[in-house]
Amino acid sequence: MRFDILTILPELLNGPFNVSMMKRAQERGLLEIHIHNIRDYSTDKHKNVDDYQYGGGAGMVMAIEPIVILIEKLKSERNYDEIIYMTPDGELLEQRHSNSWSLKENILILCGHYKGVDERIREHYITKEISIGSYVLTGGELAAAVLVDSIGRLIPGVMNDETSALTDSFQDDLLSPPVYTRPPEFNGWKVPDILLSGDFGKIEQWREQQAIERTRIRRPDLYKKFTGEA
Amino acid sequence: MRFDILTILPELLNGPFNVSMMKRAQERGLLEIHIHNIRDYSTDKHKNVDDYQYGGGAGMVMAIEPIVILIEKLKSERNYDEIIYMTPDGELLEQRHSNSWSLKENILILCGHYKGVDERIREHYITKEISIGSYVLTGGELAAAVLVDSIGRLIPGVMNDETSALTDSFQDDLLSPPVYTRPPEFNGWKVPDILLSGDFGKIEQWREQQAIERTRIRRPDLYKKFTGEA
Repeated sequence: MRFDILTILPELLNGPFNVSMMKRAQERGLLEIHIHNIRDYSTDKHKNVDDYQYGGGAGMVMAIEPIVILIEKLKSERNYDEIIYMTPDGELLEQRHSNSWSLKENILILCGHYKGVDERIREHYITKEISIGSYVLTGGELAAAVLVDSIGRLIPGVMNDETSALTDSFQDDLLSPPVYTRPPEFNGWKVPDILLSGDFGKIEQWREQQAIERTRIRRPDLYKKFTGEA
Repeated sequence: MRFDILTILPELLNGPFNVSMMKRAQERGLLEIHIHNIRDYSTDKHKNVDDYQYGGGAGMVMAIEPIVILIEKLKSERNYDEIIYMTPDGELLEQRHSNSWSLKENILILCGHYKGVDERIREHYITKEISIGSYVLTGGELAAAVLVDSIGRLIPGVMNDETSALTDSFQDDLLSPPVYTRPPEFNGWKVPDILLSGDFGKIEQWREQQAIERTRIRRPDLYKKFTGEA
């Protein structure tokens, strides 16, 4: 699977893809991540990529031309299954999006910055606008890193133990149950007896109850999906 | 303002804080970010930080001891306003959290990894459990980077133009209106006439209508808050 990420701050994306699981996935040829600097496609002599917004107001806007040149170049080289714009006013990313995109071949991601990209890019090129949550960031770069990480880890072969993902939070609209490891007692704080019992039937039951209860209390929105109310 | 971030993968956090706005904020003494490697506090001869989970099942659990040693050390050095655990089963991060935390002095952030941290850490140390969205990541490192970025940019003096944040998405439970910059026509795609009219009263009205309409269509959950239904 291939990602092309378009950004005005490529340095921001150095860390996340060069360590751990995402690094191994690239070394093993399961994942390709190409980062493109929009500034390289500026036709302006000062290599500007932003400008004041029409109608006035604070904050700059990402200019249309360098982005169009770069997207057109990439589109001429391959077909993209999705051209995603990372923006706080997009649709909220959910696990189901990542599950579905992990089966695709080529995804292009445009990182928003400043007050956002000229609206005409959104109208004419973007197939999906995605927000990673109801908060504002310095730019879309971290959001793109989050999106690629959430998709990338689901590509077959990337995780060492794929069964592990099946018990992740959200895969069945439930949060995960609590987990414990050694020692059985620390500072007087004990692991629940049931987990030490060796009765795997009862342990499964306990975990399911804990998952349901935790979801009901912490994420009533998810709980409604789980019970079929939403 | 000071952040202490506890992680088993410190390399993952190299990029995000060393460029752009977060870098300048640190250089100007507005922001301190200290990254601590949990592995340095392992008492195990192999420097292990994880172990199998009690009760069986796929996926490892972050062990209690090295984290307790590290948190106790840091707590003995200063008071923390909040000890936040980044985990997919936490409360969803919203702009209001970041607004409020941007006024604090010391925040400690523990990055979850694998199947999560031993539940006893959550019970005895964590003051807030936060999820950046309804999806699972390789680890809590990117989530911590997102949290620090969303808070850090709000610290007075960090943004060049603070009035810009007031028109961000979410600050009034509305998404931002569309933005445009030069040229007024590109590939036959035109900027809306109203934005070129110079009538700032009408432009304000248009922007508000666009923001409300965009929120209603894309984020019915936010729209209900805005209209007072939720």
